[in-house]
Amino acid sequence: MLKIDMHTHIIPKQIPNFRDKFGYGDFVYLDHHKPGQARMIKGQQFFREIGQNCWDPQIRIDEYAKYHTQVQVVSTIPVMFSYWAQPAHCLEVSRFLNDHIANLVASYPKNYLGLGTLPMHDSLLAVKELERIKHLGLSGIQIGSNVNNQNLHETSFWPIWEACESLGLAVMVHPWEMMGQEHMPKYWLPWLVGMPAETSRAICSMIFGGVFDRYPKLRVNFSHAGGSFFGTLGRIHHGHHCRPDLVAVDNPTAPLEYLNRFWIDCITHDLNALKYILGMLASDKVCLGSDYPFPLGDLEIGDFVAKSDLDDKTKQDIFSRAALAWLHLEANYFE
Amino acid sequence: MLKIDMHTHIIPKQIPNFRDKFGYGDFVYLDHHKPGQARMIKGQQFFREIGQNCWDPQIRIDEYAKYHTQVQVVSTIPVMFSYWAQPAHCLEVSRFLNDHIANLVASYPKNYLGLGTLPMHDSLLAVKELERIKHLGLSGIQIGSNVNNQNLHETSFWPIWEACESLGLAVMVHPWEMMGQEHMPKYWLPWLVGMPAETSRAICSMIFGGVFDRYPKLRVNFSHAGGSFFGTLGRIHHGHHCRPDLVAVDNPTAPLEYLNRFWIDCITHDLNALKYILGMLASDKVCLGSDYPFPLGDLEIGDFVAKSDLDDKTKQDIFSRAALAWLHLEANYFE
Repeated sequence: MLKIDMHTHIIPKQIPNFRDKFGYGDFVYLDHHKPGQARMIKGQQFFREIGQNCWDPQIRIDEYAKYHTQVQVVSTIPVMFSYWAQPAHCLEVSRFLNDHIANLVASYPKNYLGLGTLPMHDSLLAVKELERIKHLGLSGIQIGSNVNNQNLHETSFWPIWEACESLGLAVMVHPWEMMGQEHMPKYWLPWLVGMPAETSRAICSMIFGGVFDRYPKLRVNFSHAGGSFFGTLGRIHHGHHCRPDLVAVDNPTAPLEYLNRFWIDCITHDLNALKYILGMLASDKVCLGSDYPFPLGDLEIGDFVAKSDLDDKTKQDIFSRAALAWLHLEANYFE
Repeated sequence: MLKIDMHTHIIPKQIPNFRDKFGYGDFVYLDHHKPGQARMIKGQQFFREIGQNCWDPQIRIDEYAKYHTQVQVVSTIPVMFSYWAQPAHCLEVSRFLNDHIANLVASYPKNYLGLGTLPMHDSLLAVKELERIKHLGLSGIQIGSNVNNQNLHETSFWPIWEACESLGLAVMVHPWEMMGQEHMPKYWLPWLVGMPAETSRAICSMIFGGVFDRYPKLRVNFSHAGGSFFGTLGRIHHGHHCRPDLVAVDNPTAPLEYLNRFWIDCITHDLNALKYILGMLASDKVCLGSDYPFPLGDLEIGDFVAKSDLDDKTKQDIFSRAALAWLHLEANYFE
């Protein structure tokens, strides 16, 4: 059975020192301080220790073989977005990362598909890079749940949605720059509480801002099973109903009408949570995802779905059909 | 059948102008600009329009009669917490509000139970007021999901938990001062996204900080069915498992071990969401709640539970037994 993991992260083994080059900022580079491991250095501070499965294509393919998963959709690690940088500098970082992923996809066309990254805070540069991304053979882009705290309904992003739609590029929304992180220093709460909220923020912004109506062919996929969105949808829907003067100011249509208008991944870490979501969302909108190779991800690559009592049709939807539809690909692409 | 709504808000009809008295701050007063309605003025700015069911005990009892609900547990509106004020001033506001609720409970003992409010940012004053709250005949306290962005695991709150435990006072945690609100100006997102995250933040802080172990008799109830906690519990539990170096630094016990250690209300606005939670949490930990009289609340006071196919035992748990256990009361208290 074809399996496509549409939520995985990769980074080039060698990254130029953009901080030295540009003379400012928290750009990330890798310090390969021992074999098979590297320190991500953000600005001049240690950010995270990573292993070679963050950059080595063959090791990744081997690890995925254990879970009978042939295809990885790779995107950069969100800390690389660099939306805080000057747009021209963010573009240069983005081009470097996009070229790296394009080369990987060209080298392993049966195993890798790629998502690019953009200077989201400059829509002119972003649209130019989208055209290049299309030309490079990538399948779409990964963007943050907010862009320097601008929400995704903002009109400044409309040219980007329009270009994604006309170029046929898919969009994956990943939480980052988590709300409240400065006040939650302990217990990894920005990752455990802030990230799910970020994803709900992104979904709500795009729904209430009317983005799905304005760009009917835009294909968007939200990380971590939509974050906290589905677990709090009753409240969100009721809020739209009871205070349209606050919520329905740009779009009269209720949130429940959008449930099959976007995709999510299956990263719930819990079969009952996945089943709860499948009670709201069609299974061909729920994609296999893992957040590989990071520990907070599902490093058994959807094994809990494979071993579950979900029916075969549902499993096939999750393992490949949902991602194929999101990416606008046919299954025979990989034959 | 006895029904106790444990999540309702009330405010005195007349509030002193504490801003004039103290000479600073966003203290709230009411501008009764027309019959049966008032403007809440926060500092010098309009905050919210409210109706007389925010302050009139008999109108509230009449409205509740439509939903066959005899008892309301009242607490102040979170905007009244005033934790940002000088502790002595916050204490004065708290005492005023607590006296008002105590008088109400004394006047209508079969219809009202009360929760007090505290200067949470000064544990000495807070503990003194807790003793007074006990003496006044209130059942417990309502507190915010954070206190000036201090999380509820902080040691500064330990004397308060200890006093609640020894005095036998219940604790209700309500979201407020929502993370990220300054960056989500549209679509009521602080209420629809930020509030659920706040409640998960509070639950996670108390679990990971070991509060439930340190104060085994402390009885805590989290608003809005635990906010985003239950919908993202797979991620939270996995985070504790995969990065104990970040999450389990103060408490080795996994989040799932605490599920029946606290109460929540049933405000999901969705029967399937409630059933999903009831798959994790015993029904005697899920209390009837409404957030009355505010529109984002369930103004049919749990009618969706009454009309559901949940079995009678579950309904009785939700309608009264869970709240009785949380409040440490017997059903015959109301006879």
